[in-house]
Amino acid sequence: MTGRVPPERVRTVACIGAGVIGGGWVAYFLAHGFRVHAWDPAPDAEARLRTLVDAAWPALTELGLAPGASVDHLTVTAELADAVGEADYVQESAPEQLDLKRELLADIDAATPAHVVIGSSTSGYGMTEMAADAAGAHRLVVAHPFNPPYLIPLVEVVGGERTAADAVAWTEEFLRHIGKSVIVMDQEVPGFIANRLQEALWREALHMVANGEATPAQIDASIIDGPGLRWAFHGPMLTFHLAGGPGGMAHMLDHFGPSLLSPWTRLDAPELTPELRDSVVAGTEESAGERTIADLVRERDRRLVDVLRVLGKVPGAS
Amino acid sequence: MTGRVPPERVRTVACIGAGVIGGGWVAYFLAHGFRVHAWDPAPDAEARLRTLVDAAWPALTELGLAPGASVDHLTVTAELADAVGEADYVQESAPEQLDLKRELLADIDAATPAHVVIGSSTSGYGMTEMAADAAGAHRLVVAHPFNPPYLIPLVEVVGGERTAADAVAWTEEFLRHIGKSVIVMDQEVPGFIANRLQEALWREALHMVANGEATPAQIDASIIDGPGLRWAFHGPMLTFHLAGGPGGMAHMLDHFGPSLLSPWTRLDAPELTPELRDSVVAGTEESAGERTIADLVRERDRRLVDVLRVLGKVPGAS
Repeated sequence: MTGRVPPERVRTVACIGAGVIGGGWVAYFLAHGFRVHAWDPAPDAEARLRTLVDAAWPALTELGLAPGASVDHLTVTAELADAVGEADYVQESAPEQLDLKRELLADIDAATPAHVVIGSSTSGYGMTEMAADAAGAHRLVVAHPFNPPYLIPLVEVVGGERTAADAVAWTEEFLRHIGKSVIVMDQEVPGFIANRLQEALWREALHMVANGEATPAQIDASIIDGPGLRWAFHGPMLTFHLAGGPGGMAHMLDHFGPSLLSPWTRLDAPELTPELRDSVVAGTEESAGERTIADLVRERDRRLVDVLRVLGKVPGAS
Repeated sequence: MTGRVPPERVRTVACIGAGVIGGGWVAYFLAHGFRVHAWDPAPDAEARLRTLVDAAWPALTELGLAPGASVDHLTVTAELADAVGEADYVQESAPEQLDLKRELLADIDAATPAHVVIGSSTSGYGMTEMAADAAGAHRLVVAHPFNPPYLIPLVEVVGGERTAADAVAWTEEFLRHIGKSVIVMDQEVPGFIANRLQEALWREALHMVANGEATPAQIDASIIDGPGLRWAFHGPMLTFHLAGGPGGMAHMLDHFGPSLLSPWTRLDAPELTPELRDSVVAGTEESAGERTIADLVRERDRRLVDVLRVLGKVPGAS
């Protein structure tokens, strides 16, 4: 692996850009016992960053700190080069502007030791376009977290056209090692996966407000006390797998397929070709694995009871 | 209220249609101590219903049964009229076919005492079109639950053009009394609120599978370990309220508004007019209420820690 530090031997991480997302990464890395070197050009960046880390620390402490983890292991540097010079991994979390990302990633690449992988928190750009000006594009990888990065496990990892496969593999291994839930994507899709899904929901919500069909409070309540409770442990695909009864997703698509044409959202449905039908069924059954529909129903109920209780939402308890 | 039974004095509920949704209502009503009279024309309906109720009972028991609640209080009748004759409330959960719903609701209306409210579990039709053949349309109300109705609190309530306001008010009061989270809608919107949002996400997911951009397993993982964790307690609007930093939703829309035009979903975004911007900001601030952004961040972190722990998803614990 071209002289890379083994993921389990990482000791120092650089965080470039220390706003809400970058600061969240800082807190997470500190909680895992790393030394963190942060750089952010904003004049009040250090004060904001330390406030954010302090606010995150109680939750991280409750979840369990690594031995020796301390907020004292954070160093905020005045120069970018000082932040990345000793890093075993670099996480870039600059504002979401393509020109800025391009220039910054080229600067980071120029200042970072050649064996070190550089991840970007971008929420939607592909690394191919972001790495355009970087000489070391082979070690530039998208590593997109969700807010707050110190508590939400998901990181979407995907390389650009010039990214080396081993850089993607190293990033995946490193992030898994520190407890992240990593999805490695085969291809660059603008917005990746979760943001595409989240954006579809957000846009439908905005349409509903624009048309006076629902208020923001009703939109939130409809998710919080409705499907959102299930999405914390079964995603949309497994949820619809259970909607099909004993026949699962296959029955769902074969039986309710036509209702794909119902005007229940402004987003046009794709044509339910036999190929799409089969892909959805096979993929869903693969993720269900050994679990039968009855198993999944029991799992759903057990977890719903747990989530309802822990959130103080026991029906009838009002 | 035209001789209606006060919501807190309801003792007997009729459930017409006893599949996955109707059966879920049966279990919920039984757990709340009611006598339930169920009717379903399918030949094996009673056996399936009793199996479903038995499967739901452990979860309902764990959440707390009403005094005297028992699965023995379920009676499955051979005739529709026998099920509704003594009911204080009727819940219709027939298959989602408009002609069938129209005819069935007219039959239920003809057989049910005049003072009793009749709710429909339809997941998308408006009561105006479903009540077309019913003489007593004034007491027909949509009461749309989410699966499983015995655990998910949400019920969307909306009347049709001929529905009396007091029937909607009675339904709201009754369902709240038995622990449901009720959203009363002012107008008939096909698919109501949660299904519209859920469908937008589902359709985007199908597009992604159709285009080889993500597998069903990746789609589920992206929600389960990502935004889905937050949607169990903060909906999409409050989530974006926090994405705006201290400036909240106003900052989010003013600052990131242009990214509404990013191609992150196939659903076209609405134009962010000043009116829409103001509605979203005002509505979100209203639902945030007294809670500042800092309060909401603390609330988010506390609940995320709770949800991560109860679901066994503590980062780093792998």
